[in-house]
Amino acid sequence: MTNIHGIAASSGIAIAKAYQLVTPDLTYTAETVDNPESEIKRLEDALEISKQELEKIKAHTLKELGEEHAEIFSAHLLVLGDPELINPIKDKIKNEKLSAEAALDEVAKMFIEMFESMDNEYMRERAADIRDVTKRVLAHLLGVSFPNPALIDEEAIVIAGDLTPSDTAQLNRQFVKGFATDIGGRTSHSAIMARSLEIPAVVGTKEVTKTISQGDIVIIDGIDGNVIVNPTEEQIKEYEAKSESFKKQQALWAELKDEPTFTSDGEQVELVANIGTPEDVTGVINNGGEGVGLYRTEFLYMGKSDLPSEDEQYEAYKSVLEQMGDKPVVVRTLDVGGDKELPYLDLPKELNPFLGYRAIRFCLENEHVFRPQLRALLRASVYGNLKIMFPMIATLEEFRKAKAILLEEKDNLKNEGHDVSDNIEVGIMVEIPSTAVIAKQFAKEVDFFSIGTNDLIQYTMAADRMNEQVSYLYQPYHPAILNLINNVIEAAHSEGKWTGMCGEMAGDPIAIPILLGLGLDEFSMSATSILPARTQLKGISRKEMASYKDKLLTMSTAEEVVAFIKEKTE
Amino acid sequence: MTNIHGIAASSGIAIAKAYQLVTPDLTYTAETVDNPESEIKRLEDALEISKQELEKIKAHTLKELGEEHAEIFSAHLLVLGDPELINPIKDKIKNEKLSAEAALDEVAKMFIEMFESMDNEYMRERAADIRDVTKRVLAHLLGVSFPNPALIDEEAIVIAGDLTPSDTAQLNRQFVKGFATDIGGRTSHSAIMARSLEIPAVVGTKEVTKTISQGDIVIIDGIDGNVIVNPTEEQIKEYEAKSESFKKQQALWAELKDEPTFTSDGEQVELVANIGTPEDVTGVINNGGEGVGLYRTEFLYMGKSDLPSEDEQYEAYKSVLEQMGDKPVVVRTLDVGGDKELPYLDLPKELNPFLGYRAIRFCLENEHVFRPQLRALLRASVYGNLKIMFPMIATLEEFRKAKAILLEEKDNLKNEGHDVSDNIEVGIMVEIPSTAVIAKQFAKEVDFFSIGTNDLIQYTMAADRMNEQVSYLYQPYHPAILNLINNVIEAAHSEGKWTGMCGEMAGDPIAIPILLGLGLDEFSMSATSILPARTQLKGISRKEMASYKDKLLTMSTAEEVVAFIKEKTE
Repeated sequence: MTNIHGIAASSGIAIAKAYQLVTPDLTYTAETVDNPESEIKRLEDALEISKQELEKIKAHTLKELGEEHAEIFSAHLLVLGDPELINPIKDKIKNEKLSAEAALDEVAKMFIEMFESMDNEYMRERAADIRDVTKRVLAHLLGVSFPNPALIDEEAIVIAGDLTPSDTAQLNRQFVKGFATDIGGRTSHSAIMARSLEIPAVVGTKEVTKTISQGDIVIIDGIDGNVIVNPTEEQIKEYEAKSESFKKQQALWAELKDEPTFTSDGEQVELVANIGTPEDVTGVINNGGEGVGLYRTEFLYMGKSDLPSEDEQYEAYKSVLEQMGDKPVVVRTLDVGGDKELPYLDLPKELNPFLGYRAIRFCLENEHVFRPQLRALLRASVYGNLKIMFPMIATLEEFRKAKAILLEEKDNLKNEGHDVSDNIEVGIMVEIPSTAVIAKQFAKEVDFFSIGTNDLIQYTMAADRMNEQVSYLYQPYHPAILNLINNVIEAAHSEGKWTGMCGEMAGDPIAIPILLGLGLDEFSMSATSILPARTQLKGISRKEMASYKDKLLTMSTAEEVVAFIKEKTE
Repeated sequence: MTNIHGIAASSGIAIAKAYQLVTPDLTYTAETVDNPESEIKRLEDALEISKQELEKIKAHTLKELGEEHAEIFSAHLLVLGDPELINPIKDKIKNEKLSAEAALDEVAKMFIEMFESMDNEYMRERAADIRDVTKRVLAHLLGVSFPNPALIDEEAIVIAGDLTPSDTAQLNRQFVKGFATDIGGRTSHSAIMARSLEIPAVVGTKEVTKTISQGDIVIIDGIDGNVIVNPTEEQIKEYEAKSESFKKQQALWAELKDEPTFTSDGEQVELVANIGTPEDVTGVINNGGEGVGLYRTEFLYMGKSDLPSEDEQYEAYKSVLEQMGDKPVVVRTLDVGGDKELPYLDLPKELNPFLGYRAIRFCLENEHVFRPQLRALLRASVYGNLKIMFPMIATLEEFRKAKAILLEEKDNLKNEGHDVSDNIEVGIMVEIPSTAVIAKQFAKEVDFFSIGTNDLIQYTMAADRMNEQVSYLYQPYHPAILNLINNVIEAAHSEGKWTGMCGEMAGDPIAIPILLGLGLDEFSMSATSILPARTQLKGISRKEMASYKDKLLTMSTAEEVVAFIKEKTE
């Protein structure tokens, strides 16, 4: 037996035979041809069949996983139909008498290299799309079968170098019990998909494809990030037990699904979910979410060639509000820019996009984008319990301007004869240090705060969390972060307002006791974290945690904080 | 008469005839040639004569303005000698039978476009270097005279589209009384040079070259950013009076040169200077600086092909310390990365360099760079009053590690038989929000703080100040910034430590009263701001300003702060 360690990407235990998802040999021999016309025909056929395949995968994904996951295939289909990619391939066949394989390969490589060299997340993703799509077309040209995870028809653990989005989307939950890959991290596309599919997964192992052979018995431990190859009898028993206790825990969690969230000393807090699309609401309800703490509206704007219309947005917001009934739904207005680009908006290239023209900064200067979103939200407001929040607020002037536009549109809509709720709370994301520092001044004017820890930590520590060389500085437990969070909560409470948190920190078992002690009112996290958090909170006393507050806030390092909390909550 | 408004780039008033610094016509006709060999010879001659000219300009600049300014010509000389640029030109002449002009122009354009498209400050500067150098060589090839400001031999105001570094360096202070340009900003190279040369200048007027003709009488008002063309008698009198009063003010400032700095209520503060090279010390002394508050050591590492040796650094530090006598000299250890790249260090390209791998983050992982600098500083410490500070400290662990390495090298040096001062204060730059927030924890371990407002504001507001679209968020008077500064000063004082400030804010007439009220101990600014600041401080009471502290810290916007301070200090 061999024990391989990787990154725990999706919880749970799975035991089954290994299924090696091998990329086929895509080398081609015929470099030039005599009959370019028939070669172009071959290319067109391969493009057409690839298109049909992708349409199928997209429909399957939409049904199984929702719009957000299906988007990637819209992007792939766009690539297949893009004349800027296809015409140069045909030209090459005509002018240089290249084989379809060689022409496709050369042109695709050129685009991939160009996009990859652009040092821009969005462009690098486009490079990945082209690579994925090109392989599929090439396989069809060569008549070799492309890895088709949908064909797996017995229980298996999928082993792969990496799983492309199209691979992951085709995994059949009935047979695929888990997967392990050589590359990837907790936030890579395949890891996110695994959590959505609730398939145990370990990624970033560096060596599973080398070490594991087709048919080996494999245990995937997605709780601790282990892969055990050809385990002993004893190990199998051990992991079966671990699987049992995990399932028991899941059952215990499920019991709390319809319960409110109380601490051991009887204090109630609110556990809500982060969502990206109306399709995500099912997951929120199934996981006992008491509301939506962050509805990211960017997905409505992505994978499109133009802005979504007011009506299109209205339908999406209405759908979420109706599904959630009287439970609160906090919608964040558009946060584009930074690492989230929209090609049709033609945002400027920036040297430091995270410190750039994004979110409310962009919206306040582009009212033709901002106003339709606010109108759609206001119109939808009568269908549920809507709260609106503005992202990336750094100054009070920005909040005042944004709110004034909102009120103006409310008046406009009423004059136009629309119904608009009069009970919409209007708050802000606290993700910029300046706003956390003078939260007291903000608390007089906003209805609520939602702390966005991902950005707040990044700016407070001056460290890009996507940059591996400084990611060690991305320290959620740094006493400076705790002091800022405390400042925000105290400011809100002094004005009778509430504070939520919608960054990753809100669902983190080490942060939860700290945040409880600081007085956080609402914790917004990924839906699957809600029941574990509710279970954890049942066992912690807010009074006890609050008694450590002064001690925590005057500590010197994140390390001290973690050691202290671990000791107190053991 | 015409009145043109621009950006006040260098104080003072000048009246003289306009001298149009015209870029010669550099269009060429002969595109191809019959004899490539003689063409290559022509190219080599033009390169050689350009090289000689640049050597002369460089020597002149070194003598008049110091090493920092002369560096740009080292860069130009590197370009002239770079085979990656020169060989393709020669190849083009040989293979395509192009004229030297056409070959030079084509290759240069290719490099310029490539470097400019790289979206990287450093590369864009390289593009500017190539453009400047190419023009010079092209002029020699065409036998036309290149603008030669050194030839000006009567009193004149230079009028130009832009002044290249080589133009500015050649300006003869005896005759050139001022200049005005179409483009540029307060921090463009020509503006910085004008301040060093103490020549009144207005930049970014957009239209001086169009509006002004050779021989027009021109008034440059570098105090308020005005250019008056062919003024009336009355205007000449008015500006002569303004010039007189400016000179009187300068004389008043000069009287304070050797005085300590006292407020109107008799409180003493320290006014010190920011420097970049040992040559800058003369300016500090001439302007009454009470020390050096920030010695930026990056220049030692720039314009070189490899790291400076320990001895080379030791000589520079020793020179500064000796010149400053017993006055304090605060040296900042190497702050590279971000927008400051060193080609030979091969730092990674980053998506957000301002949130990246730089300064202490880089030094702690590259001890082969860090230790020689610390050794050089320690060895030089016996020649004056040295204080060392570490840049970009975000966590206490970083400070502890850096200080441990410093103490280790101190022991090493003593064991090797070197003298090292035992009275070196070791402090940190406070330029990352996290450090400002938990300054209290830091104050127990550091000897002093120096607040770097340029970065602190940028991170606190999450706005890249070099990005025009968000530069309105770069708000030094934002109440959050004032709260952080106050937190740092209070923390320092509670532990009996001192706080300085070395960002641009420390020399700003609106910020000075606020900072005085918050209790700042040391103000570090550009040398020419020291005497105006000393004059201003004589007229303000610390007690009065301190009485506004609570009011200022609880204000909501920067606008309120500025209005209040203007009212109180009128």
